[in-house]
Amino acid sequence: MNTDAVRVPKTHLVRTELDGLLTGSDVGDPVPSERELAVRFGVARETVRQALHELLVEGRVERRGRGTVVSRPKLVQPLSLKSYTEGAVRMGRTPGRVLVSWVDVRADAAMSAALGVAVGATVMHLERVLLADGERIGLESTYLSVRRFGWLRDSFDPATSLYAAIRASGVEFGAALERVETALPSPREAALLGTTTAMPVLMLNRRTVDDADHPIEVVRALYRGDRVAFEAALTDR
Amino acid sequence: MNTDAVRVPKTHLVRTELDGLLTGSDVGDPVPSERELAVRFGVARETVRQALHELLVEGRVERRGRGTVVSRPKLVQPLSLKSYTEGAVRMGRTPGRVLVSWVDVRADAAMSAALGVAVGATVMHLERVLLADGERIGLESTYLSVRRFGWLRDSFDPATSLYAAIRASGVEFGAALERVETALPSPREAALLGTTTAMPVLMLNRRTVDDADHPIEVVRALYRGDRVAFEAALTDR
Repeated sequence: MNTDAVRVPKTHLVRTELDGLLTGSDVGDPVPSERELAVRFGVARETVRQALHELLVEGRVERRGRGTVVSRPKLVQPLSLKSYTEGAVRMGRTPGRVLVSWVDVRADAAMSAALGVAVGATVMHLERVLLADGERIGLESTYLSVRRFGWLRDSFDPATSLYAAIRASGVEFGAALERVETALPSPREAALLGTTTAMPVLMLNRRTVDDADHPIEVVRALYRGDRVAFEAALTDR
Repeated sequence: MNTDAVRVPKTHLVRTELDGLLTGSDVGDPVPSERELAVRFGVARETVRQALHELLVEGRVERRGRGTVVSRPKLVQPLSLKSYTEGAVRMGRTPGRVLVSWVDVRADAAMSAALGVAVGATVMHLERVLLADGERIGLESTYLSVRRFGWLRDSFDPATSLYAAIRASGVEFGAALERVETALPSPREAALLGTTTAMPVLMLNRRTVDDADHPIEVVRALYRGDRVAFEAALTDR
């Protein structure tokens, strides 16, 4: 039954060896150098480099100074109506947010339909870097109708949870449609995320409505692919 | 309120212009050359190249011969207990599968726990390329206990839906836990997916159980990030 046509045994061998090495290591342990690993496994340095690059993108290892060390596990966020904040806390991480910009924009046709406002109506665009234990892991753009949520300007501290503030005002989150894609960040996004344009990110687009089906927000968020995973519990309902 | 610190106006301008250009185009329309666009927008070719690369990774455009054309929309798969096949059909695409390999492996500790078999027990590893309208869009590895599902060897055509075959045997899918990450494909995976090691993929890891909570399968699937998106309907339940 084996019709495997595309074999790259050396790369596979190196990955298996490295996986074993990492499994037996602790977070922060140094990973041997490319040269050392090439000698140990009897393969070309390029083969080791490819395997280490894969591990870097997967977030299993990370650069520290001139060396490479074993990473801590990814932050696993539930795909749910809970906020980033709640997901991070559940994982034992301390969430944080850094304001990038908070500006008014005019609703175009797509935003008008999504937020239930007139074309040209004023929409707030809140852009924040998401932190976990002080590390940059996401970049979130939230769009809200000023007519409905303009009061946030007077009372909301953008370093805190937006969902908590909206809930405290009496609005109940009812449902959301969320799309998950992958992308490479633009130079600006990579700079804000503390990563490079060659490292893939998870891109989430979400539209949230309240319990009366009225639009709350449109969100476009980028999460560092080497730091974050999403998890969904699927049932037959 | 605007504290936007990292501005790259030219890249942003070019992306906005290109987005407008693509919105007004049909699938298969040629995209003007880098040189032509650089002249039209009054920017460096490198700026246009970066923007076109982002659009390529996002699947908005694709290479055809020596040129670039407008892509068809991504295949949007529901995050659900339905199979790839059902998701593709729902989108009006014709699903297909190409067998890569179908071999027996021994369960390690992790596989043993996930599939509820002894360490060292025989597990089938079925690896298939997933097609949509004949185009390679995914690479799926399914692991099944031979004890429970060995009968598939006699009757299952790997070019058809595995979920349909399992359901036809009287097994009901009950629940799954699915993790979504992003990765770069290895050279072997890129070759099987018809893509390159620089193009991000969505990586899904799933464990499925039946309606009596007995393990059915462990799946590791890679989907081309430029061809596939996932969608989840979230509610407050």
